[in-house]
Amino acid sequence: MLEEIFAPRSVAVVGASPDPTRLGHTVLKNIITNGYRGAIYPIHPRAEEVLGHTAFPSVSVVPGPIDLAVIVIPPEHVLAVVEECGKKGVRGLVVITAGFKEVGGAGKELERQLLALVQAHGMRMVGPNCLGIIDTVSSLNASFAALMPEPGEIAFMSQSGAMCTAILDWSKTQGIGFSRFVSLGNKADVDEVALLQAWNHDEHSKVILAYLEGISDGPGFVAAAREVTRNTPVVAIKSGTTAAGTRAASSHTGSLAGSEAAYEAAFAQSGILRAHTMSELFDLAMLFAYQPLIRGNRLAIVTNAGGPGIITTDAVERNGMVMAQLSPATHERLQRELPPTANIYNPIDIIGDARSDRYRIGIDAALNDPHVDGVIVLLTPQAQTDLAETVEVIAELAAAHDKPVVTSFMGGYSLGPALERLTAARIPNYTFPERAVQSLAAMYSYAQRRQRPEPRYRSFEVDRERVRKLFAEVRASGRVELGEVEAREVMEAYGMRLPKSQLARSPEEAAQIAAQIGFPVVMKISSPDILHKSDIGGVRVGVGDPTAARDSYELIEYRARKYSPDARIWGVLVQEMVRKGRELLVGVSRDPQFGPLVAVGMGGIYVEVLKDIAFRLAPISEQEVREQLRSIRTFPLLRGVRGEPPADIAAIEETVLRVSQLVTDFPEIVEMDINPLVAHNEGEGVIVLDARIILQ
Amino acid sequence: MLEEIFAPRSVAVVGASPDPTRLGHTVLKNIITNGYRGAIYPIHPRAEEVLGHTAFPSVSVVPGPIDLAVIVIPPEHVLAVVEECGKKGVRGLVVITAGFKEVGGAGKELERQLLALVQAHGMRMVGPNCLGIIDTVSSLNASFAALMPEPGEIAFMSQSGAMCTAILDWSKTQGIGFSRFVSLGNKADVDEVALLQAWNHDEHSKVILAYLEGISDGPGFVAAAREVTRNTPVVAIKSGTTAAGTRAASSHTGSLAGSEAAYEAAFAQSGILRAHTMSELFDLAMLFAYQPLIRGNRLAIVTNAGGPGIITTDAVERNGMVMAQLSPATHERLQRELPPTANIYNPIDIIGDARSDRYRIGIDAALNDPHVDGVIVLLTPQAQTDLAETVEVIAELAAAHDKPVVTSFMGGYSLGPALERLTAARIPNYTFPERAVQSLAAMYSYAQRRQRPEPRYRSFEVDRERVRKLFAEVRASGRVELGEVEAREVMEAYGMRLPKSQLARSPEEAAQIAAQIGFPVVMKISSPDILHKSDIGGVRVGVGDPTAARDSYELIEYRARKYSPDARIWGVLVQEMVRKGRELLVGVSRDPQFGPLVAVGMGGIYVEVLKDIAFRLAPISEQEVREQLRSIRTFPLLRGVRGEPPADIAAIEETVLRVSQLVTDFPEIVEMDINPLVAHNEGEGVIVLDARIILQ
Repeated sequence: MLEEIFAPRSVAVVGASPDPTRLGHTVLKNIITNGYRGAIYPIHPRAEEVLGHTAFPSVSVVPGPIDLAVIVIPPEHVLAVVEECGKKGVRGLVVITAGFKEVGGAGKELERQLLALVQAHGMRMVGPNCLGIIDTVSSLNASFAALMPEPGEIAFMSQSGAMCTAILDWSKTQGIGFSRFVSLGNKADVDEVALLQAWNHDEHSKVILAYLEGISDGPGFVAAAREVTRNTPVVAIKSGTTAAGTRAASSHTGSLAGSEAAYEAAFAQSGILRAHTMSELFDLAMLFAYQPLIRGNRLAIVTNAGGPGIITTDAVERNGMVMAQLSPATHERLQRELPPTANIYNPIDIIGDARSDRYRIGIDAALNDPHVDGVIVLLTPQAQTDLAETVEVIAELAAAHDKPVVTSFMGGYSLGPALERLTAARIPNYTFPERAVQSLAAMYSYAQRRQRPEPRYRSFEVDRERVRKLFAEVRASGRVELGEVEAREVMEAYGMRLPKSQLARSPEEAAQIAAQIGFPVVMKISSPDILHKSDIGGVRVGVGDPTAARDSYELIEYRARKYSPDARIWGVLVQEMVRKGRELLVGVSRDPQFGPLVAVGMGGIYVEVLKDIAFRLAPISEQEVREQLRSIRTFPLLRGVRGEPPADIAAIEETVLRVSQLVTDFPEIVEMDINPLVAHNEGEGVIVLDARIILQ
Repeated sequence: MLEEIFAPRSVAVVGASPDPTRLGHTVLKNIITNGYRGAIYPIHPRAEEVLGHTAFPSVSVVPGPIDLAVIVIPPEHVLAVVEECGKKGVRGLVVITAGFKEVGGAGKELERQLLALVQAHGMRMVGPNCLGIIDTVSSLNASFAALMPEPGEIAFMSQSGAMCTAILDWSKTQGIGFSRFVSLGNKADVDEVALLQAWNHDEHSKVILAYLEGISDGPGFVAAAREVTRNTPVVAIKSGTTAAGTRAASSHTGSLAGSEAAYEAAFAQSGILRAHTMSELFDLAMLFAYQPLIRGNRLAIVTNAGGPGIITTDAVERNGMVMAQLSPATHERLQRELPPTANIYNPIDIIGDARSDRYRIGIDAALNDPHVDGVIVLLTPQAQTDLAETVEVIAELAAAHDKPVVTSFMGGYSLGPALERLTAARIPNYTFPERAVQSLAAMYSYAQRRQRPEPRYRSFEVDRERVRKLFAEVRASGRVELGEVEAREVMEAYGMRLPKSQLARSPEEAAQIAAQIGFPVVMKISSPDILHKSDIGGVRVGVGDPTAARDSYELIEYRARKYSPDARIWGVLVQEMVRKGRELLVGVSRDPQFGPLVAVGMGGIYVEVLKDIAFRLAPISEQEVREQLRSIRTFPLLRGVRGEPPADIAAIEETVLRVSQLVTDFPEIVEMDINPLVAHNEGEGVIVLDARIILQ
C-alpha cells in the first residue's frame, strides 16, 4: 500500500529553505503544521535549523533512518541527491522538482536516469514535476498546496497539479474530505496503476477518484481497475478525448492520449465509472463516500412541493431508474398519518406546510418499504419549514437504514447551516435534484457491475503454429498485408467457417469440384496479377450445373488471357455460393496504449452512416461480448424484426471471441476486418465472406 | 405590457390582516417594505389600520382609484370581492387564494365563474393559487415570498410556486437578479402566452426564463414565442415530459402535459432554448443577462493551468463549437509579451505563476483577434495568483469589447470575494468549465436562429372542396377510417403522385388498361369484402404483357370466387408498377395541446428499430422542413452513400409541406400515415404507395 509514501515514520525535505518565499519552505511548513507525527528532517546546505527543526546539510548525515524524502531542489541536483537517498536507505521519494520529461530533450533523458536510479535502489517515487502528496490518515501534507483538505474517505489522484489546487480549494467550501490526495506529475514510477493497486482494500478510502490525461500502461490499468472495482468504486474523468483535446494534452504533458473508443472500452470492461465533468465526479464521490451501496433501481421521492417532484420523476425515468411502486401497507400508513391533501403515491408529496414530523413519516415509510431501494428527499424552503429539525430527522432515519438517502434542498440563502449539517451527517445534498438522480443511477450501475461473476474467457482450439509460419512467410516476402488466400488460411486456422472453395485447373475439374461443393457455385479467376476480377469478366455467380461449370471455366480463362495476356493464371477458384443473411463487420484496430480493440457492428450503411459499432479491448470475456453485441443500436435486427427469426447470435459472439484470441496471440496484427460476416438464422451459423489482415 | 399587474399606481391587498401569522399580512408587508412607491390600501373587514396604513372594510369605499388588487381571502369570498373590484374600476388582479381548479370538482366551477367575472369587467388576473408577482422595476413585491430578489435583467415565470421559492432563495446566494418574477398558479387568465407577449420588447428584461409544467394554448404559445425570440432569448425548462413525470404532473396541477415530441418540435420551431436542469437554466440566464450575443462559434481559452485547458478544449468540441485558430499577429504578440514557457496557441496557457498582467495580455490578444468570437478565462488559484487584480482586468477588457467573456474560476475557499466581484462586473462565472462551454454553445445556437429569415410558408393549389365532401361522406357512412380508394383521392386532391391505377371489369379491359399504363403492372382484386388480398392469391406483380394481363384477371377472379364465395367483387385493379427507390414514412398525429404534428423518417426498420424520426408542428415552413429532414440520423442515405445518386429531397420536402397543408386545412384528421413514400433519384420525384387516414 506504498507505506513508504503515505505512512512514513520519518520524512526528510531536501531543499527545505529558511526563506519563506521558496517552495521547499512551504513544503516543510505544510508537513509541520498539519500534524504529522513522525520525525522531520529539513535538508539544507547551510541552514542549522528551519522552522524550529534541526537542519542537516545532506540526507547521509541525518542520524536516524529516513522513510520518505521530498525533493524540492533544482533539477540538475536531483540525481545526486537521489543516489544519496538510495545509499541512505530511503524507501520513498516525492520529487516536486520540475524540468524533466515535460520539457522534452535533455529533460527526458534526465527523467530516464532518475527512474533507473530509483529502481536500482528499490525505492518508489511520486513525480517528478508534481504538487506532492497529502495523506489525512497519517496527517502528512508533503506538498506545496496552500490548503490541507479535511479528512474523509475519498482517495484522489490527478495528473494535473492545477486540478489538485482547484479541487482542494473547492472542496473546502463543500465540506468534502479526502483520505489520500496525490498529484501524479510525470508519473515516472508511481502511476495510476500503482496507486490503484496500493488503494485496493484501503480501509480508509470508500471511493477512488482519478483525473487522467493519458494512461501509460493500458492493459495494466484495466487489470488493476478490474480488481479494485470489485471492492471499491473508481470514478474517473478522462480529458483529452476529443481531437482538439488531444492536441492540447500532447502539448501539455507529452503523454500520448488514447483514442476515445479505447477509453470507453477500458472503462466499461474494468468497471470504472466515467464522469464527464468535474461536478459529476464529486456528485458521485459524495454518494459513495457517505451512503451505503444501492441494491436496486427503485427510488422513492419525498417532497414538500409538487414541481420539484415532477422534475425529479422525469429525471428518474430519463436516467434508467424506476419510480418505486409503494406497497399497500405503505400507502395505508401514509394515508393514516399524513393530512388528506398529501399525495401518498410516489412522489410522496407532504405539501408546502410540512414540518419535520411529516418528513419523518414520509421518509420512514419509504425506507421501510421493501419495494424501495433508495430515497430522494426534496425540500423547498417554505414559511413553515423547520430546517434544523428536518435535517436531524433525515440524518437519523438515513443512519438507521441500509439504503441510500440523498437530498436536494433547493435554494441557498436560507439553507446555509442546514447544508453544513447535512454534510456533517454524511447526507449528500444536490443543489438541483437531477444530479441526485444521475448519481444514484451511476451508483446502481456500479452495484450491478459488482454482482457480476468473474470474467470467463473461452479458449478455442486453434492452429496457432500455422498462423505463426504464415506471418513469417508474409514478412519474409517484404509485405505487411496478407493476400486473400492467406487471410483465408488464418481464418481457418482459428476455426472460422468460410465458403467452401477449391482451385480447379481444368474445365472438367471445375465441374467435379462444383459437384462436391454443391450447386450453385461462384467461379473466379485465380491469378496473382489480376486484381479487379469482375472488371474483366473473371467472376461468374450462380453457376448451376456441371455443363455451366465447364463452360464458365473456359469463358473465364479465355477472357483472362484476352484482357491480361501476360498474367500468370493459376486456374479458376470454385466457391460455395453463400445464402443471404444478416451482414456484420468484425474489425480490429490497435490502440497505442490499450492494445487490440475489437469492433462489431451491423455491416454496410449501419456502420458507415450510423457509426453503430461497439468496441471492446481484447481479450474479451464471454460476458463482455454479450454486452458488446447488445450495446449496438441495431441489435434488434439480429434478434429479428417483423416476425423474422433471430440470427445466430451465439455464433456471432463466438466469432468475436475467436478474433479476440487471434489478436491476443498475435500482437503483430495491427488491423483486421471481417467484412462481411454473414450471419444465418439461429443454429445455422455464420460465415466469413471476406477478410483483410495487416501486420505491423 | 400588463402595466396593471407590473406597474400599478395603487395596490389594494384584500385580506391584509393585522395578524402577522396570516398570509395577507405577509403580502402587505412585502409591498410596504420593499420600496413600492404607489398608494397602498389594506382591505380588512374590521381593522382600522394595518402596518401603519389606513385600512378599509372593502375596495368600494377606498377613496382613490385602485389599479391592482391582491386577493388573499378564503375562496368562497373571492367572487364577491372580484365583482366589487370590477365595479370599482380595478384593472389588475393577483389572486393568491387557493381552492380552485387544482382541487377539482366545485373548485373547477368556481374558477370558471371567476374567469368569467374577470373577463366581464375587462380586468387581467394572475392566479388563482399562486405565490404572487414581484417586479423590481416598480419595486413591487406583491407576493408572500420570504425574500425580495435583487434587481436584474432576467424575467422569470413559473407554474410551480415552490420552484419560485426555491429559486428566489438560491438566487440570493448567487447574486442573480430579476426584473419580473411571476408565479403563474392556475393561470386561469394570464398564462405563459400572455406573459411572453407582455415581455416582448421589455427594455428591462434581457432574457426570459420559464418553468413550465403544461401549456394551455400550444399554437398561441408557439406564435408568441416565435415573435419574442426574435428580440429576446427565451429559455424554458419543461418538466413532466417522461411518462412517469406526466403522471406526477397530472396529479399536481390538473394540467394535461403534452407529449415530449410535441414540446421538442414547439421549442425548435419557436426558437426557445430548452434547459434540461435548473442549473442549465441559470447558466444560460446569466450569460444572456450579462454578456453580448456571440456572433460565431470560435472560442479562445486563456488559462493558468494545462489540465483545465484540456478539459475545456474537449468540451468545446463535444458541444459543437470550435477552438479559434488565432491569427499570426496574435501569435506574434503573445510570443513577444508572454514568457517563453507559455503556450501561445489556443488554449493560451499563461502558466501557473501568471499574475493579472499576463491575463491582460492573453485576454486582450484573444478579444482583438478577428478569428475569436468569445473568450473563456480559466483560473486555478495558485500561490502567485492575484485574484482581485485579475478580476478587474477581466471586467475591464470584457466591458471594452463586444464579444462574450466568461470565466471558470475553479475552486471555492479562496475565491469568495473574487466571485462576488465577478458577478458585480457582470461576468458569468462557472464552477466547472464544461458549463461555460455549454452555455456559450446554446447562446450560439440562439444567435444563429435569430439571423434566420422570416418563416416562409408555401401554399399549394389543392382541391380542398373535394376532400371536404369526401370526409363528409365518410362520416355520413358512420366511419372514421378512410378506405384505400378514399385515401388515394385525398392524396390526389392535395397534389401527391400515386401509382397510375384503374379498375378493370374484364380480362380484355385489364389488358387495355395495362397497355395504357405501361408494362409491367401490378394487378389486385378489388372487393370491399376481401381484406387480405395476398393471402388468397389476389395480387400479381410484374404482369408483363397483354396475354399475362388477361390470364391474371381470370386467375385472380377465379381465386376470389373460390376462396370468398360471398364477396362482392368490383373487378381487378390494374396499377403502375413503381420502380424501387428509397422508402420513407410521413406521418401525422395530433397533440392535444399543440395540434397536428408531422413526422418524417426513413421507412421500415429505420423508424421501427432505430426510432429515427423527426417531428414538426403544422404548419411547417420551408426552412423548418429542411431542418426537419436533415435532423434524422439517416439523412445521409437520402443524400446518397457509396456513390449512389441523391434522392429527390426537394420532392420529399414538398410532400411533407403538402401534408402539413392538408392537416392544417382539416383539423379533423387525427392520424395519417404515408407509408411508404418512395423517393426516386434527384429530379425524378416521389410517389405515395400507401396512405391511411383516420378522422376524429
